[in-house]
Amino acid sequence: MKLLSVAMNRTVFMRGLLALAATFGLLFLSASAFALTDPLPSWNDGATKQAIVEFVKTTTDQSSPSFVPPEERIATFDQDGTLWVEHPMYSQVVYCLDRVPALVKAKPELADTEPFKTVLTGDLEAIAKLPKDELVKVLAATLTGMSVDQFQAEVKSWLKRAKDSRWKRPYTELTYLPMIELLKYLRENGYRTYITTGGGQDFVRVYAEAVYGIPPEQVVGTAGVTTYGYDKEGKPFLLKEPKLLLNDNNAGKPEGIHFMIGRRPYASFGNSTGDRQMLEYAKAGEGQRLAVLVLHDDDKREYAYGPAQGFPDTKVGTFTQELYDEAKKSGWIIISMKDDWKHIFAFETAP
Amino acid sequence: MKLLSVAMNRTVFMRGLLALAATFGLLFLSASAFALTDPLPSWNDGATKQAIVEFVKTTTDQSSPSFVPPEERIATFDQDGTLWVEHPMYSQVVYCLDRVPALVKAKPELADTEPFKTVLTGDLEAIAKLPKDELVKVLAATLTGMSVDQFQAEVKSWLKRAKDSRWKRPYTELTYLPMIELLKYLRENGYRTYITTGGGQDFVRVYAEAVYGIPPEQVVGTAGVTTYGYDKEGKPFLLKEPKLLLNDNNAGKPEGIHFMIGRRPYASFGNSTGDRQMLEYAKAGEGQRLAVLVLHDDDKREYAYGPAQGFPDTKVGTFTQELYDEAKKSGWIIISMKDDWKHIFAFETAP
Repeated sequence: MKLLSVAMNRTVFMRGLLALAATFGLLFLSASAFALTDPLPSWNDGATKQAIVEFVKTTTDQSSPSFVPPEERIATFDQDGTLWVEHPMYSQVVYCLDRVPALVKAKPELADTEPFKTVLTGDLEAIAKLPKDELVKVLAATLTGMSVDQFQAEVKSWLKRAKDSRWKRPYTELTYLPMIELLKYLRENGYRTYITTGGGQDFVRVYAEAVYGIPPEQVVGTAGVTTYGYDKEGKPFLLKEPKLLLNDNNAGKPEGIHFMIGRRPYASFGNSTGDRQMLEYAKAGEGQRLAVLVLHDDDKREYAYGPAQGFPDTKVGTFTQELYDEAKKSGWIIISMKDDWKHIFAFETAP
Repeated sequence: MKLLSVAMNRTVFMRGLLALAATFGLLFLSASAFALTDPLPSWNDGATKQAIVEFVKTTTDQSSPSFVPPEERIATFDQDGTLWVEHPMYSQVVYCLDRVPALVKAKPELADTEPFKTVLTGDLEAIAKLPKDELVKVLAATLTGMSVDQFQAEVKSWLKRAKDSRWKRPYTELTYLPMIELLKYLRENGYRTYITTGGGQDFVRVYAEAVYGIPPEQVVGTAGVTTYGYDKEGKPFLLKEPKLLLNDNNAGKPEGIHFMIGRRPYASFGNSTGDRQMLEYAKAGEGQRLAVLVLHDDDKREYAYGPAQGFPDTKVGTFTQELYDEAKKSGWIIISMKDDWKHIFAFETAP
């Protein structure tokens, strides 16, 4: 009886040991699997990918002279043309144009007033020819004059139903898969990822958390003044005013970064002249810094526009030859969408 | 031999079990110890402390109907008079006055110009009588016209040597110990703590991380425009301009919170009429919200000023009877420094 009990105990013990060994084995296997897993599977192997991975390794390795403490790991990303498609027109401008019929319904006197009259015709060529200050009237009328909550509810509803003209998909599916991987990869390495967009801060905040994993407080964008007031029931609300507070383009990007974050980014990503100062500012900091530009050079899978390297010039997302030269001279990295990205969109990889 | 081996294995097994049990015991003990440790030891037991602890428990307990997901746990704190002493004068104003001699040395023509002439005399009564727009000239001259980096280096150096007139201690030691405990307690419960100060954002960011554990990106404060430019070597810098971007007082507090955070705080702390709208805004949100005012009613250990409840009126940190009544009516909590706080400063408790 006693021997049996000892034997049984021994069996239990051995079983326990085996289970333990198996667990360790699994841990070991999954650790190796993790090390072997490519965090950027949609990127082709090459100098661009290597430079990004090297930057992350060197700034997060405690034994590296370029080690950056976690609290200082800030990476900033332009949105339009850097994280998602900006052609043929910025999604937010499409939103504003789409809102005009509802606006005219609420204020019928606008139907015969320019620029709303032209927008109502739906004639895209005529709309494209509207002078800039007329377009600003459309933006002001559709982005201001309501509470922040009302505006964000409208945007949310529009994002659910609106589809882009080329892929016939919601705009939120037109994000670049390699950049989504990069955002995650940076966060897994202790970087806080910020959006620094010329687009509207209140607009981007509606979907940034779901689409990019970036919370509202990490969205820096062009913003208007809001005014605190009370509704009929005495409940406070914030009214969106047609007055600019931060123009988050060009020099406004580093200015906005200082205002909202108060730290200089270690890595910064853009795709146009509007991002130039942000990249200069990031790169001018001490230690290892990463400045990256996305070059739209894939007219088959996305668009090719420039005019750097002889691509056609456009008003949306201008990458000039001057910017290209500064990038080359200053050690910035240029992503060729054509050569560096295996896939551009997640839906390409869907079964 | 075999029996011996079995017996030894059994001993090893039992030893392992005992070790395991001991570990569990320790875990259990430390869990109990943690539960028994008061996270707010400098607070007297009573309704105020209880209300704060109840709020934290109910918003962080997954089974509670008032549970708040971690990403939405935002708590905002005014600084002057809420986190540290603001009397007889805001520390930042003392900084500005202290900077005048160096300013005049650099620009000797100011020595005979008001208000600098009066400030140079060091006659505090005469300085206190300067009209507001003259004082603004001193602030503009000492807070702007230099790069952000230069300004922050000056503040850092000043904080090391400056001492307040009553306690003869660095200003950064004049923080309220119960509030420092509260900041930590909230963070330990997944809240992100923000400063929302009428004081200067660039000023507070210099010490907020070391003093409060609050990083630069979580400091919302009054801020001027900065302008991006290049120095002689072509290195980019941000110049502090004498132009207001955000006046983070009164309605400016919820406006600034929306701009910088984009979420409505679940808990908000202030001490004066300048915090009223921030507390209203927080409290107007859905679910459980906490709005708290610090009442300076301890003329022995700190200061007593009001004019709520008959305390003397002052220009620095006004807590009006009207604010007191709104607080009572709206279910805000009022901290009596005299009754609710066991200790006010950490240096009181030092051996």
